Amino acid sequence: MATLNDNYLKLKAGYLFPEIARRVNAFAEANPDAKIIRLGIGDVTEPLPAACRDAMVQAVEDMGNRDTFKGYGPEQGYAWLREKIAANDFQARGCEISADEIFISDGSKCDTGNILDIFGDDNIIAVTDPVYPVYVDTNVMAGHTGDANEKGEYGGLVYIPITAENNFTAAIPTQKVDLIYLCFPNNPTGATATQEHLTAWVEYAKANGSIILYDAAYEAFISDPSLPHSIYEIPGAKDCAIEFRSFSKTAGFTGTRCAFTVVPKTLTAKAKDGSDVELWKLWNRRQATKFNGVSYIIQRAAEAVYSEAGKAQVKALIQFYMENAQIIREQLTAAGLSVYGGENAPYVWVKTPQGLSSWDFFDKLLQTCNVVGTPGSGFGAAGEGYFRISAFNSRENVEEAMQRITAKFKV
Amino acid sequence: MATLNDNYLKLKAGYLFPEIARRVNAFAEANPDAKIIRLGIGDVTEPLPAACRDAMVQAVEDMGNRDTFKGYGPEQGYAWLREKIAANDFQARGCEISADEIFISDGSKCDTGNILDIFGDDNIIAVTDPVYPVYVDTNVMAGHTGDANEKGEYGGLVYIPITAENNFTAAIPTQKVDLIYLCFPNNPTGATATQEHLTAWVEYAKANGSIILYDAAYEAFISDPSLPHSIYEIPGAKDCAIEFRSFSKTAGFTGTRCAFTVVPKTLTAKAKDGSDVELWKLWNRRQATKFNGVSYIIQRAAEAVYSEAGKAQVKALIQFYMENAQIIREQLTAAGLSVYGGENAPYVWVKTPQGLSSWDFFDKLLQTCNVVGTPGSGFGAAGEGYFRISAFNSRENVEEAMQRITAKFKV
Repeated sequence: MATLNDNYLKLKAGYLFPEIARRVNAFAEANPDAKIIRLGIGDVTEPLPAACRDAMVQAVEDMGNRDTFKGYGPEQGYAWLREKIAANDFQARGCEISADEIFISDGSKCDTGNILDIFGDDNIIAVTDPVYPVYVDTNVMAGHTGDANEKGEYGGLVYIPITAENNFTAAIPTQKVDLIYLCFPNNPTGATATQEHLTAWVEYAKANGSIILYDAAYEAFISDPSLPHSIYEIPGAKDCAIEFRSFSKTAGFTGTRCAFTVVPKTLTAKAKDGSDVELWKLWNRRQATKFNGVSYIIQRAAEAVYSEAGKAQVKALIQFYMENAQIIREQLTAAGLSVYGGENAPYVWVKTPQGLSSWDFFDKLLQTCNVVGTPGSGFGAAGEGYFRISAFNSRENVEEAMQRITAKFKV
Repeated sequence: MATLNDNYLKLKAGYLFPEIARRVNAFAEANPDAKIIRLGIGDVTEPLPAACRDAMVQAVEDMGNRDTFKGYGPEQGYAWLREKIAANDFQARGCEISADEIFISDGSKCDTGNILDIFGDDNIIAVTDPVYPVYVDTNVMAGHTGDANEKGEYGGLVYIPITAENNFTAAIPTQKVDLIYLCFPNNPTGATATQEHLTAWVEYAKANGSIILYDAAYEAFISDPSLPHSIYEIPGAKDCAIEFRSFSKTAGFTGTRCAFTVVPKTLTAKAKDGSDVELWKLWNRRQATKFNGVSYIIQRAAEAVYSEAGKAQVKALIQFYMENAQIIREQLTAAGLSVYGGENAPYVWVKTPQGLSSWDFFDKLLQTCNVVGTPGSGFGAAGEGYFRISAFNSRENVEEAMQRITAKFKV
């Protein structure tokens, strides 16, 4: 009799974004004339950079001739892409990361979930609260937690609150944890980590034999030159950190799909016999066995991000979204709301007005303003009473959404 | 102290194809003038169908305009692709599979590995021998096996031999097993399953509450009209089978990356409390949480496979490879070798001559003929003494490879 993975039954109803989609669809069906503006899921809206499109048209042409046709590529990604990433994203910032430490994938969501494959089930796992739900849900699925309480906190996980009270700083734990998920610039709060803060984390990890799973999907949105873009800018991080990066938000690839994960060759974890084993070998084996690489056509699009034209186009794209973020910050602040983030990240984190719960504010905003955001409580118990507004939309939509919100919610 | 997944340490050195690549690269470096012909990995060589390329150029153009730009798509795939698959691949053959039972992915390798996520760790697992190594290795990684013996057989797995002695028919087990991997047309032997044989499997699965993981990646190569293309052609299979399909070999997508998995809504497995839970819900949750869908551009290419032009181009592509298979069969048979498969599958399965072991024949073929094949023992203990030759290459290369082999190995 085939049995299922009972851990799935511990998951709270619906992953956050499908639940939002369900409520928005129900509202849209009941109100077919409503002009809904979506600042919820954090999906990009602007056209893909021309350099990436040109590269894909060329790549499609390559696929039409036997001499340039590409079948199976390396599971880890093509060397020409890995080398450009190593040079531009790491070596140019003083990080000693080599091309063969970079694994190309179809998304950071996949990678941050799949990375658990190579770790033991006995690790103590820490996440911030609020947090990107994928980190938590994939640990639930893997059987690393107990049941959830009424606030949605799972037994067995260590939650590190990041709220206005502690200035959105993830405090170094007083207990020992083995795996720590950190995401900076932070999704959902838009908070950032300074060099000093990340140095304290690296020192903690090295002292405790812990590994930091560092999600830097939003690093391209950093405007403050003093902030690190990669954890490998911190001395010693190559011995204690895996970094996740994505083209999704950087270059508008949410529907095109390309990302990468950095696993330094110096990084080890303990086997049961006490020996230290290179995680690079395990991840390489995992990817060779359970993945077949990213489409040649898509990898060519990613490569074009590093061309001169591509760099200029990506810069303009990010600047556009960050101007949106600035408008959101200014308008909501002028309306008397408490506003965080949005300066080095495409997310603005808002304290809900009138003491509303996150989901009540979601429903109210949808019904009265026809604007979709993301309830803070969907990211964890400490996100209750907050709300995430994304800067990913057209200027016109952002401005109209802000007019609607400030008209209804002026404090 | 972070620990690793010790199950990875049970894996035998190197996944089969990377090991072949290593030996071929070493030979090529030592013999730079050798003209190596690769009939090993089973990778397609002919250009991507024009209909697919045209669709991708259009899709890239869509990504260049805000009105037609696509961000995140449904994790399960776009409805327009799922509907065409349901209609053409299933409903047209009398299988009652609906669009929402089809999950688009970037590869069957990923899906056949990832599917284990939703099952319990206590299932008894059966594989054929020889077998596609991914089924075995992913079970090792998930901790479902003991160590391997010297023949490469892992403790805890049930092996069902398919050899010339039993006419390459996977015998129904006399013991109870919970999950059964079946692949027809078979990789690596090229054997097929009749309606009667699959009916016996479905009856076994229904009687025992087992689930069949049916890999039909090569169904497009079936020429015998009496053979089923889908397990859902067997009455009752919707209650006991998941089917994996791929565009890789059908339409030359090995470097383009698109596949799909069918999870019928009627399919259940047992929870620990004894209740029956729909696996569709679990797989849907798994994909929504750990996957972000396939690139819009690539899904448009897959959709074009079902256009009139696409169907004609795919048919011609398959016919071309199957003519190669016929040449391989005829030439090796004429040379006195024992040859199987290659009639409804792009693989020819050869008994090694002169009593050579599979790897010895691999090395000899590489060194004396500069031809790469795949050692049968790499697919399992019962594959020892066999060798897989793939029909995926140009006509010229296939003919030259056959001339070289028949000249050296004529029995």
